[in-house]
Amino acid sequence: RIDSARLWDSLMEMAKIGPGVAGGNNRQTLTDDDAKGRALFQTWCEAAGMTMGIDKIGNMFATRAGEDPDAAPVYMGSHLDTQPTGGKYDGVLGVLGALEAVRTMNDLGIRTKHPIVVVNWTNEEGTRFAPAMLASGVFAGKHDLQWAYDRVDHDGKSFGDELKRIGWVGEEAVGARKIHALYELHIEQGPILEAEGKDIGVVTHGQGLRWIECTVTGKESHTGSTPMPMRRNAGRGLALITELVHEIAMKNQPNAVGAIGHIDVYPNSRNIIPGKVVFTIDFRSHLLEVLDGMVAEFEARAPGLCDGIGVGLEWKIVGQFNPPAFNEDCVAAVRNAAQKLGYSHMNIVSGAGHDACWINDVAPTAMIMCPCVDGLSHNEAEEISPEWAAAGTDVLLHAVLETAEV
Amino acid sequence: RIDSARLWDSLMEMAKIGPGVAGGNNRQTLTDDDAKGRALFQTWCEAAGMTMGIDKIGNMFATRAGEDPDAAPVYMGSHLDTQPTGGKYDGVLGVLGALEAVRTMNDLGIRTKHPIVVVNWTNEEGTRFAPAMLASGVFAGKHDLQWAYDRVDHDGKSFGDELKRIGWVGEEAVGARKIHALYELHIEQGPILEAEGKDIGVVTHGQGLRWIECTVTGKESHTGSTPMPMRRNAGRGLALITELVHEIAMKNQPNAVGAIGHIDVYPNSRNIIPGKVVFTIDFRSHLLEVLDGMVAEFEARAPGLCDGIGVGLEWKIVGQFNPPAFNEDCVAAVRNAAQKLGYSHMNIVSGAGHDACWINDVAPTAMIMCPCVDGLSHNEAEEISPEWAAAGTDVLLHAVLETAEV
Ligand SMILES: NC(=O)NCCC(=O)O
Ligand SMILES: NC(=O)NCCC(=O)O
Repeated sequence: RIDSARLWDSLMEMAKIGPGVAGGNNRQTLTDDDAKGRALFQTWCEAAGMTMGIDKIGNMFATRAGEDPDAAPVYMGSHLDTQPTGGKYDGVLGVLGALEAVRTMNDLGIRTKHPIVVVNWTNEEGTRFAPAMLASGVFAGKHDLQWAYDRVDHDGKSFGDELKRIGWVGEEAVGARKIHALYELHIEQGPILEAEGKDIGVVTHGQGLRWIECTVTGKESHTGSTPMPMRRNAGRGLALITELVHEIAMKNQPNAVGAIGHIDVYPNSRNIIPGKVVFTIDFRSHLLEVLDGMVAEFEARAPGLCDGIGVGLEWKIVGQFNPPAFNEDCVAAVRNAAQKLGYSHMNIVSGAGHDACWINDVAPTAMIMCPCVDGLSHNEAEEISPEWAAAGTDVLLHAVLETAEV
Repeated sequence: RIDSARLWDSLMEMAKIGPGVAGGNNRQTLTDDDAKGRALFQTWCEAAGMTMGIDKIGNMFATRAGEDPDAAPVYMGSHLDTQPTGGKYDGVLGVLGALEAVRTMNDLGIRTKHPIVVVNWTNEEGTRFAPAMLASGVFAGKHDLQWAYDRVDHDGKSFGDELKRIGWVGEEAVGARKIHALYELHIEQGPILEAEGKDIGVVTHGQGLRWIECTVTGKESHTGSTPMPMRRNAGRGLALITELVHEIAMKNQPNAVGAIGHIDVYPNSRNIIPGKVVFTIDFRSHLLEVLDGMVAEFEARAPGLCDGIGVGLEWKIVGQFNPPAFNEDCVAAVRNAAQKLGYSHMNIVSGAGHDACWINDVAPTAMIMCPCVDGLSHNEAEEISPEWAAAGTDVLLHAVLETAEV
């Protein structure tokens, strides 16, 4: 079993970097605080006897040598970046849980045939630079490295420039590494495990995602002196599409979700009718045909709604992945570990996207979930108990040891 | 008649300060560019032989002496501040037209019994610091000076600090001046004069206004892993209220308008369900009972809509004035001037709020409107013709000369 107190201490120590305004964290990718978090993680990895490798997109790989130098490593990890108003555990538990698993192996003098790598993927959240899971996506061959470098944030700064600025461009080619298997421990970010009273979610599938960025174009004009029939109010386009997205998702639930999280209004002045609104729809389902059906229904109905109120609509997909099915052997290793350790468990579908979803396309992969209070995540009030964190990390340790061959 | 070319040159010269991104202006109140515009205006006033007085809220009063030193002055003017994506004429024409009228009096050696004052009111637009017409409102006793100083912009900077920073806090008590009468020339900001082919709008009334700032509170949570029935999406509150406001305004048009121009979404991330949305409704009518009826209908229906989708709603009035009826003698002076000069004219209601609407409560006041292309305003593409500008300024000159007694 892992050292629960040491794990919790590390989580709290990391949470001091990039504190939020309400008890959580704001340690967005490629900020100065991200750099500080990376440096602390590197210090801890080296203290645990691991060697750090960095690739050209800033992914961090800390290696614990194996007995067979030719064997491909077994990976475990997640991400240290957070939402602007994020929690202390989303991603962080997966990285520091993996570190704790290595520390425990060291304490117990356990050697494995396969090397073990603890990984911190760059820009999992995708808030500052869309899409989410950007660097694991490049690793898995889903995006070009240059395309990733060219992503820009809200202030027009590019991913490539910011990665350079914080000093975390490595030498390794992205995706060049061999992976024997990968395990990612993550908080559920949903309410199911807590409601069912289970310690461990054995993640069998994930949801696919489509991010649709919409631009509604009306005509900027004075709120007081523009007669009602002459208005082309882009804000009404947002309103109608907000409700359309909700209706489409409700029709397909419990197999789907949908909402709009990001909205920019132009020029955003109290006495100007919005001339333009840009926003992103987030549709998800673990069933590919449902996911595609939702996008098709949006495409069929949204233009007519906008036409009807005299505003224009353009859209493009700015993030997408299909529903992943995790590797059966790796999933079985997770289930066996939970069983052996006496933790209650159930199969679960991941509601959120994770780096593991991309890596699953290029290597045997599985995920372990632990509950979080009220299913709350992407919220500074995100909370877990030390016991949940320890159970998840124990299962991670044992699944990895089985795969890495003691 | 005024010098049309000189007027147009001054308009174009002023427009160079705080240029917009699309041919208009971004010279928001109490910015460095506002200070530059003020300095240029002061230089021009002094070159025209006027003496500048500044009050504690930064209102600028340039005086041309009268024959009778005890007579209260006749005022003319408007505002030099603009919207973030504003035009070159909204407000500016009223100030520089007044300056041109004085220059013409100088050229022709015209003396008046009453002194003449050209005024530039601070923060008419109200975009950076709500409410609009802030400084004329303090002048007219509608707001406390300290309350005005305490208004904060989006970055948390206060009106008082910013006024000090740009160096335009004057010595005069606000509202201490005597006003014999006030005339404001302004572009219509609506489509009526152009559609009717009239040179001059004789403004008899204005619309009243209510700005209602709403805060819809939901629960920030993950767009992927939060099941549909557990969502409390503040964005849906915005959507329902956007359509409610439109419906209420449509029911009351052509005697009313309504829209939402300003929207802030929190935390505004693609994969977070909005936990909070803050936005401002702008309702207007020239009929007080219609205006109050719209607010009452909003209050009766909006909370239920929000309740129905599990989000909270709070609101407060952040700007308001009742529909003004302008002074009959001053309105007649405007009509007579247009008549005498041979300009086509019609009575009109002002769709927008103006500093003249506040001053109308403390002194005899009227407004002159000239057309603008497509009725477009609060848009960088705002346009007028030099002929329209000249006609309005001619009428301003003659109405003022009649009231100031040549
Ligand atoms: N786990 C997580 O929140 N990932 C961000 C990508 C997503 O929105 O699902
Ligand atoms: N004229 C003008 O645009 N004033 C701003 C106040 C308003 O919104 O009416």
